Amino acid sequence: MTIFDQLESEVQCYARSFPVTFDKAQGEHLYGKDGKKYLDFLAGAGTLNYGHNHPVLKQALVDYIMADGITHGLDMHTKAKAEFLETFNEYILKPRDLDYTFQFTGPTGTNAVEAALKLARKVTGRNTIVSFTNGFHGVTLGSVAATGNSHHRGGAGVALGDVSRMPFCGYHGRDIDSLKMMDTLLSDPSSGVDLPAAMIVECVQGEGGLNVANADWLRGLEKLCRKHDILLIIDDIQAGCGRTGTFFSFEPSGIKPDIVTMSKSLSGYGLPFAIVLLRPDLDVWEPGEHNGTFRGNNHAFVTATAAIREFWKDETFANSVIEKAAIVADRFKKISDRYGVTRVKPKGRGMMQGISMADGDTADAVAKACFERGLVIETCGNRGQIVKCFCPLTIEKDELIRGLDIMAEAVAEVVEKAFERKAS
Amino acid sequence: MTIFDQLESEVQCYARSFPVTFDKAQGEHLYGKDGKKYLDFLAGAGTLNYGHNHPVLKQALVDYIMADGITHGLDMHTKAKAEFLETFNEYILKPRDLDYTFQFTGPTGTNAVEAALKLARKVTGRNTIVSFTNGFHGVTLGSVAATGNSHHRGGAGVALGDVSRMPFCGYHGRDIDSLKMMDTLLSDPSSGVDLPAAMIVECVQGEGGLNVANADWLRGLEKLCRKHDILLIIDDIQAGCGRTGTFFSFEPSGIKPDIVTMSKSLSGYGLPFAIVLLRPDLDVWEPGEHNGTFRGNNHAFVTATAAIREFWKDETFANSVIEKAAIVADRFKKISDRYGVTRVKPKGRGMMQGISMADGDTADAVAKACFERGLVIETCGNRGQIVKCFCPLTIEKDELIRGLDIMAEAVAEVVEKAFERKAS
Amino acid sequence: MTIFDQLESEVQCYARSFPVTFDKAQGEHLYGKDGKKYLDFLAGAGTLNYGHNHPVLKQALVDYIMADGITHGLDMHTKAKAEFLETFNEYILKPRDLDYTFQFTGPTGTNAVEAALKLARKVTGRNTIVSFTNGFHGVTLGSVAATGNSHHRGGAGVALGDVSRMPFCGYHGRDIDSLKMMDTLLSDPSSGVDLPAAMIVECVQGEGGLNVANADWLRGLEKLCRKHDILLIIDDIQAGCGRTGTFFSFEPSGIKPDIVTMSKSLSGYGLPFAIVLLRPDLDVWEPGEHNGTFRGNNHAFVTATAAIREFWKDETFANSVIEKAAIVADRFKKISDRYGVTRVKPKGRGMMQGISMADGDTADAVAKACFERGLVIETCGNRGQIVKCFCPLTIEKDELIRGLDIMAEAVAEVVEKAFERKAS
Amino acid sequence: MTIFDQLESEVQCYARSFPVTFDKAQGEHLYGKDGKKYLDFLAGAGTLNYGHNHPVLKQALVDYIMADGITHGLDMHTKAKAEFLETFNEYILKPRDLDYTFQFTGPTGTNAVEAALKLARKVTGRNTIVSFTNGFHGVTLGSVAATGNSHHRGGAGVALGDVSRMPFCGYHGRDIDSLKMMDTLLSDPSSGVDLPAAMIVECVQGEGGLNVANADWLRGLEKLCRKHDILLIIDDIQAGCGRTGTFFSFEPSGIKPDIVTMSKSLSGYGLPFAIVLLRPDLDVWEPGEHNGTFRGNNHAFVTATAAIREFWKDETFANSVIEKAAIVADRFKKISDRYGVTRVKPKGRGMMQGISMADGDTADAVAKACFERGLVIETCGNRGQIVKCFCPLTIEKDELIRGLDIMAEAVAEVVEKAFERKAS
Repeated sequence: MTIFDQLESEVQCYARSFPVTFDKAQGEHLYGKDGKKYLDFLAGAGTLNYGHNHPVLKQALVDYIMADGITHGLDMHTKAKAEFLETFNEYILKPRDLDYTFQFTGPTGTNAVEAALKLARKVTGRNTIVSFTNGFHGVTLGSVAATGNSHHRGGAGVALGDVSRMPFCGYHGRDIDSLKMMDTLLSDPSSGVDLPAAMIVECVQGEGGLNVANADWLRGLEKLCRKHDILLIIDDIQAGCGRTGTFFSFEPSGIKPDIVTMSKSLSGYGLPFAIVLLRPDLDVWEPGEHNGTFRGNNHAFVTATAAIREFWKDETFANSVIEKAAIVADRFKKISDRYGVTRVKPKGRGMMQGISMADGDTADAVAKACFERGLVIETCGNRGQIVKCFCPLTIEKDELIRGLDIMAEAVAEVVEKAFERKAS
Repeated sequence: MTIFDQLESEVQCYARSFPVTFDKAQGEHLYGKDGKKYLDFLAGAGTLNYGHNHPVLKQALVDYIMADGITHGLDMHTKAKAEFLETFNEYILKPRDLDYTFQFTGPTGTNAVEAALKLARKVTGRNTIVSFTNGFHGVTLGSVAATGNSHHRGGAGVALGDVSRMPFCGYHGRDIDSLKMMDTLLSDPSSGVDLPAAMIVECVQGEGGLNVANADWLRGLEKLCRKHDILLIIDDIQAGCGRTGTFFSFEPSGIKPDIVTMSKSLSGYGLPFAIVLLRPDLDVWEPGEHNGTFRGNNHAFVTATAAIREFWKDETFANSVIEKAAIVADRFKKISDRYGVTRVKPKGRGMMQGISMADGDTADAVAKACFERGLVIETCGNRGQIVKCFCPLTIEKDELIRGLDIMAEAVAEVVEKAFERKAS
Repeated sequence: MTIFDQLESEVQCYARSFPVTFDKAQGEHLYGKDGKKYLDFLAGAGTLNYGHNHPVLKQALVDYIMADGITHGLDMHTKAKAEFLETFNEYILKPRDLDYTFQFTGPTGTNAVEAALKLARKVTGRNTIVSFTNGFHGVTLGSVAATGNSHHRGGAGVALGDVSRMPFCGYHGRDIDSLKMMDTLLSDPSSGVDLPAAMIVECVQGEGGLNVANADWLRGLEKLCRKHDILLIIDDIQAGCGRTGTFFSFEPSGIKPDIVTMSKSLSGYGLPFAIVLLRPDLDVWEPGEHNGTFRGNNHAFVTATAAIREFWKDETFANSVIEKAAIVADRFKKISDRYGVTRVKPKGRGMMQGISMADGDTADAVAKACFERGLVIETCGNRGQIVKCFCPLTIEKDELIRGLDIMAEAVAEVVEKAFERKAS
Repeated sequence: MTIFDQLESEVQCYARSFPVTFDKAQGEHLYGKDGKKYLDFLAGAGTLNYGHNHPVLKQALVDYIMADGITHGLDMHTKAKAEFLETFNEYILKPRDLDYTFQFTGPTGTNAVEAALKLARKVTGRNTIVSFTNGFHGVTLGSVAATGNSHHRGGAGVALGDVSRMPFCGYHGRDIDSLKMMDTLLSDPSSGVDLPAAMIVECVQGEGGLNVANADWLRGLEKLCRKHDILLIIDDIQAGCGRTGTFFSFEPSGIKPDIVTMSKSLSGYGLPFAIVLLRPDLDVWEPGEHNGTFRGNNHAFVTATAAIREFWKDETFANSVIEKAAIVADRFKKISDRYGVTRVKPKGRGMMQGISMADGDTADAVAKACFERGLVIETCGNRGQIVKCFCPLTIEKDELIRGLDIMAEAVAEVVEKAFERKAS
């Protein structure tokens, strides 16, 4: 019995899929205690967009530590925080013509979501939040109410209120205009759908199954929010930081959200970090109204600053992501063409793509066959039916292709085994 | 206008009290960008029990980083996590005859509380949680419902339910036995107080005003919980990790909580980290039911392990805390004796002590006078009336005494100024 | 200033539309204190299906009172209650092949709804109830959560939870299959729509605007409920007791609801009375679990029994309703044809019909013009845009036609005045 | 199997204690179908303060019916309503120097409570309501949240929120000043007890066990409410209409509640009827915001008017209640003296008295022994341990004494049987 079996709660999850004790990591590779090398197509569920332990970030962090830079600083002013603010503003916001105020929340995505929902309620004086089918926003009580997944909802142990559920882009099929439906409900004083404080939406739903909100729909949603005086919150925790090919996932649509939540790859190094970006006039917080001990994780400020400077100083990195995304899309199309879309259907956008299998068991079998070949990869989707390619964006092209080859082999093994079972 | 004025949300709090940009820190000292040295009696609100950037922990962390140890690992098994589990079990649990299962939650105190409340509800099938007057448990929606502070409660923007409020030890005065009152309410099928899933309590209320639950009361509370089949959760986020002189704040009472939440000083280095300790038979979680991106902050595992080995290998550290606590108590008694308990009243236990002033404004004035003398210190309490001495436990005795001297001067200045105002 | 102005709350509603003090009533006629006669197309919002003070019922009631029959009897057994149960069972349930257990609730529709929702939650162990756009189920806290109207919802003063809102038959237009949409949401474990305890629906929405659930949709809804193991509650408070041409409004569809709520015309005489009919195996109530002082209104038992015997002993009455409904439909079609459906659109089914005007102001003007001509009539609909013909079912044909004539005149006056305004 | 066994829900309650089909009633007597006469010490749980079918009220009602007076009138103005308003104002409010606006709610106590709580929330903009241990206010969702009884609370099937529970007068024993405790909690910004919209309290708790709020406590409560700007609602549904010797139960204390809820004996004849009396400046309702079909039960207006004129024209009736209450108190004291207060303890005030037995089973046995002797009586209290004497206030003295004799015999039988059991 390992120390994990002995002492760690049954709530552990990823460790079940990857029964290895990991020790080191570099770039797109993980290494087991025994030295075995794994290709990482999980990347901390999107936390390691720039790979493991990127040398530039590592150097910046070690220098900071060696110089006795402040590690923990509550929400006090520190040099590291000032540099982060300046850098994010100069390299990210200004070039995109965005003007946001920064709120540092507890360093987790769910905490950023909690803060965003609170603020929206405070600004508007309304209770309800619209969230979408298959949306995932975290598991603390406020966030999980907005999350669609019944497994997580059921864990709450209390009634989850103050949220209205609406269909995500394309949810009810192409022919049904969910924006028009929402407009009808919101315009009708007797629909029973209360005017919400805000809508919270992911441009690409990560956990929910790599469902893509297209640019037209996002623009329509922004318009709907403006019409009814509803705040628009983009949850860019998983899809942000370049994952879809632009820093923010909403950039291609041209919308300007009122509030944006960010976390995961924000520190660039896998360190806990989260922010809420808000339209300056929405900043009606009173001092300390939403607080928390780890709002000032200076190590994360340091690596985040270094990451922005390294990857967002020009178009090089973004272009490389687009190029790699095309490789992935091409390969997934080929796999799909071979077996048919009912068996293997490509999903997603940018480097946030996957293949939808017949069901959760099939997807699990594919992920397992990948792991046997040294590829760490997970599934997502409402029934766990999607194998999700989530490698570091900095991955070497060769390794990307090798990983896709492994996926193709794994699919072949699983799908062909299924054929044989049916045939016999 | 600084970058903070320009870009940071009004929600910032500590930065208002300490209008300095900090740059470095070592032990009990903070340094401004301009090189000015400050004595830290805030210690990250209890996150830096072992001081800033302790050299032993620093070395362990840098070694780990330089060796490309895994930084982010979701909840996968890593060598660093294994070592943390082993070390905590050997050095902390076993010697105290405690047997707990570890749940790694999102790395913030509030997330640990959310997980604990969820689990209690899941295990018992009941909705409500009893929490106590002046209790503070965090500001995400589930935790803030259990928090007493109306400033934080009001920020929620929605109704806070599923919590029953009970009086903390001594809340209604010495003559009122709050345990008996609770027993009456819980035994009466028509009291309107529903049988709760759990009670959550701090042994010393940090934010609520350094209110101490004495050992008799804690034992009575444990007995009451056993009688009514209610789970007992100790929130040891602020009072734990040696702050009161023992690793867990409940040790002197001899109780065995069903669940313990820890965070703040757990990493020992100020890194975001939180755990829930649970009685093994309560571990009814399904895989991933409560999840989160940063449950596997390996840097925190590394420093936490080093901290436990450094400080909890024998009694030396604990004894030094008790010794320093006596110095603080003695000094606060003297100050109180000088001005009378209605003006200055000592509060708290261990290195979790403070002085209660006439009101919040007076306490603010004292904290401000301290800061002018180079001492960083904050206030707490239901009206902010308490000046809270929260220095690193590793502080040099000389520096501790210097800090207390500053506090005494500040009190003198403020109280005497008030006398003069009244006199004139 | 009248006594009403002086002493009655601003919450009064109908009295504002009909600023008369009424004194007597017979059949379809109301009489003012001054002796003026009014034709009643309001009928107590559907409470007086058999007209005011029907002589047969009146005799039965007076006989009972003169004999000192029990008036109030809590929920004790009385002869009057026994006779009601026997009569309802023999004349109503058996011929329709229905088998229900009777629950006597507080004598109001909303109380019956509260009991039905409670029972559904208790039986299934689930929290949420599906209710529909434009649905109206009452204004006590449990019912108003299921009600769509924002005016009433807003009055609650607290968050209304535990209800999911779904589109009523045809709500999003003919081309959108709301049943399929619901099935998708309920089948998807990540839709965010929790499996409900029950669905509550009106076959014709009275307050919501005379929206008709067609028989196919009702059958589909019943099938959907069976598939997902959801209870189906028909709220027949306004549409029941013959209003649509059959005793229960759901009869034409052939469905068998799990639970039916009834009130309004149930006593036949305008006396407060309500029942919940439940599938016998759902009767899991504990004694007194849902109680109330006026569950045993024996006067209502007496008149309800007399009414059932008088009107439901054979097909005569039901046929006369259908005949009159045809007259109404024909007349409304003619009015609509004259002005076009964008100006005047017929709505409803059976004797639950009305005409939808351009907006609420126009409908108010029509109702006002009717009242000036001695016709008491109200508006309904999500924007109050529908003039609602709700006369006693026992109305003389001549009087029905006279009332419809008045409506036609009123429409002419209002619509033509609008033409003139536009023209000038 | 009777028709009741066959068709009536298991939720029935009183019929279980009195397995008889009743047929007629006069004054303080009920008659079975078989002609057997029963003495009624239940009086519709306080609905029949003036006895069954009082001849003066009966005459007024029959005259009204025979004249085709309006029966049902929604909330339209009727002559009967005008007379009720005038009479209540002249005979009840003015002589007591009270100035209230009348809201006619659905004709049940719980509906009046729902309206009162809504209004308090609307006026203050706050969510929570303070209600008291052992309070009973009804079982619809808003009221049951304020009700203490776990049997009824458990029936709700959803979480009951927006209510804070406080100890009723004397709940924690004589030495504990519950008013001071409340003041502490409400004055402390960190107590976790949110400032409530209103407090709702019964002056004598009917269902909760005939617990009496003494005049000092009520005055203190009024003062506390004024201090914190909280509305004070007296629920006078059971204790009102003369039950305690004055029309309103709060008269002896001299307080002036902001809102009063009334029902039960208000119609005087057992007919469904309820009103909310509100301080005129609190009448911020919008038209129809709280509505309902049976707000205009004109039969109840007629009998209520007749009852007020008959019983409240002078002091005669009130004095007779006080005289009878003294007889009851004297007798109960004697019974208690005989067996000791641990076995039989008198409770209550006015004609709202009872005897508290050792436990619920003993009290049930006493009630059963009474019924065997022809006395209809029920139990109340948090454990059903109280036998509750609730006869009509108009009872003949002889019959009152006969009923008390029966109670004494029943107690003797039950208590002595218990002695024997113990002895053997």
